[in-house]
Amino acid sequence: MAVVTKTVQVRSKGQDDMIDITEQTSRAVKESKLRDGIVTVFVSGSTAAVTTIEYEPGLKQDFPKMLSRIAPGEIEYEHQKMWHDGNGHSHVRASLVGPSLTIPFKEGDLVLGTWQQIVLVEMDTRQRDRKVILQIIGE
Amino acid sequence: MAVVTKTVQVRSKGQDDMIDITEQTSRAVKESKLRDGIVTVFVSGSTAAVTTIEYEPGLKQDFPKMLSRIAPGEIEYEHQKMWHDGNGHSHVRASLVGPSLTIPFKEGDLVLGTWQQIVLVEMDTRQRDRKVILQIIGE
Amino acid sequence: MAVVTKTVQVRSKGQDDMIDITEQTSRAVKESKLRDGIVTVFVSGSTAAVTTIEYEPGLKQDFPKMLSRIAPGEIEYEHQKMWHDGNGHSHVRASLVGPSLTIPFKEGDLVLGTWQQIVLVEMDTRQRDRKVILQIIGE
Repeated sequence: MAVVTKTVQVRSKGQDDMIDITEQTSRAVKESKLRDGIVTVFVSGSTAAVTTIEYEPGLKQDFPKMLSRIAPGEIEYEHQKMWHDGNGHSHVRASLVGPSLTIPFKEGDLVLGTWQQIVLVEMDTRQRDRKVILQIIGE
Repeated sequence: MAVVTKTVQVRSKGQDDMIDITEQTSRAVKESKLRDGIVTVFVSGSTAAVTTIEYEPGLKQDFPKMLSRIAPGEIEYEHQKMWHDGNGHSHVRASLVGPSLTIPFKEGDLVLGTWQQIVLVEMDTRQRDRKVILQIIGE
Repeated sequence: MAVVTKTVQVRSKGQDDMIDITEQTSRAVKESKLRDGIVTVFVSGSTAAVTTIEYEPGLKQDFPKMLSRIAPGEIEYEHQKMWHDGNGHSHVRASLVGPSLTIPFKEGDLVLGTWQQIVLVEMDTRQRDRKVILQIIGE
């Protein structure tokens, strides 16, 4: 058993951008030389999240659209009254989707479905450099 | 320390079906002979999710009802315009709830509350055979 | 590689209370003497959840307010018709946010962002004593 840490650096285009990080995650698991285990995908920061989705142009619009029904940008946020940074909705969306995801791998392969990709979801209102930590544990 | 992989196969009845997989998960942990560790419960596929809930007939209706307020089946989805498979809402619901759940165990027992069961939530519009991977890591 | 279990006990003030448990989690990781690995933060019970958020007074109101738009307390729940305990909305909110969170640590430090705290979110309608299990795995 061993722990291997890898980092994925991506630059988002701003609010509602969804970035496919499946390839980087899969490669990191292969490079770790571990055969069976789990990889925890974790985004540092409070205005982005990670999940899985079928990564295609339609859902890249539908998923953020759902988030904007739940936490519209135009309504009042207490966060805004105190900090005036215009991203109250970004924070609550990120906390709802969540910063972490744990995926098993077997014989070096992630157990994802064919139409299931790992994505970073940018909720912040501007371009951000994002750091995703991949903590790989296995044997 | 060791890694043990188990698989749970279930057949869902279609959209909004919630299947209690606590018993299978608990048994898999016992069969692994590991005493202390974590089990990652992961569903392959992009139109189902896993979470915990008090598994009783009322909430089995209330939870999907909440999802249908967030992502109604009747509204327009870009996914639908491109793929015509009628399950845009299924995808966004599944990505929101998420495909993975990690549960600690101590002395061979999952640390669940008495009224807290592990469930697979079917979001797709039809019956599906679902594969849930249990990755058990511990000592 | 080793597994170390720690428990955090907190008393919530009732519905919508958010409790910062970052300090306890961080200390537990340090006390484990493990340098690299993951900590799974898991709340036992079906009416509370864990996530990360920028822990400041504004968002402590905004996040529960979002949950009350998704699952209002005043609408009908099937759970209520059967159990009459007035917390149908608590259950569906908790299942949506989820009971578990897994965070990597490196050289003894959690890889959280500066403005990203670990929180227990109380969804139940009354004060509750909450037990959060920290399962720390690493080397």
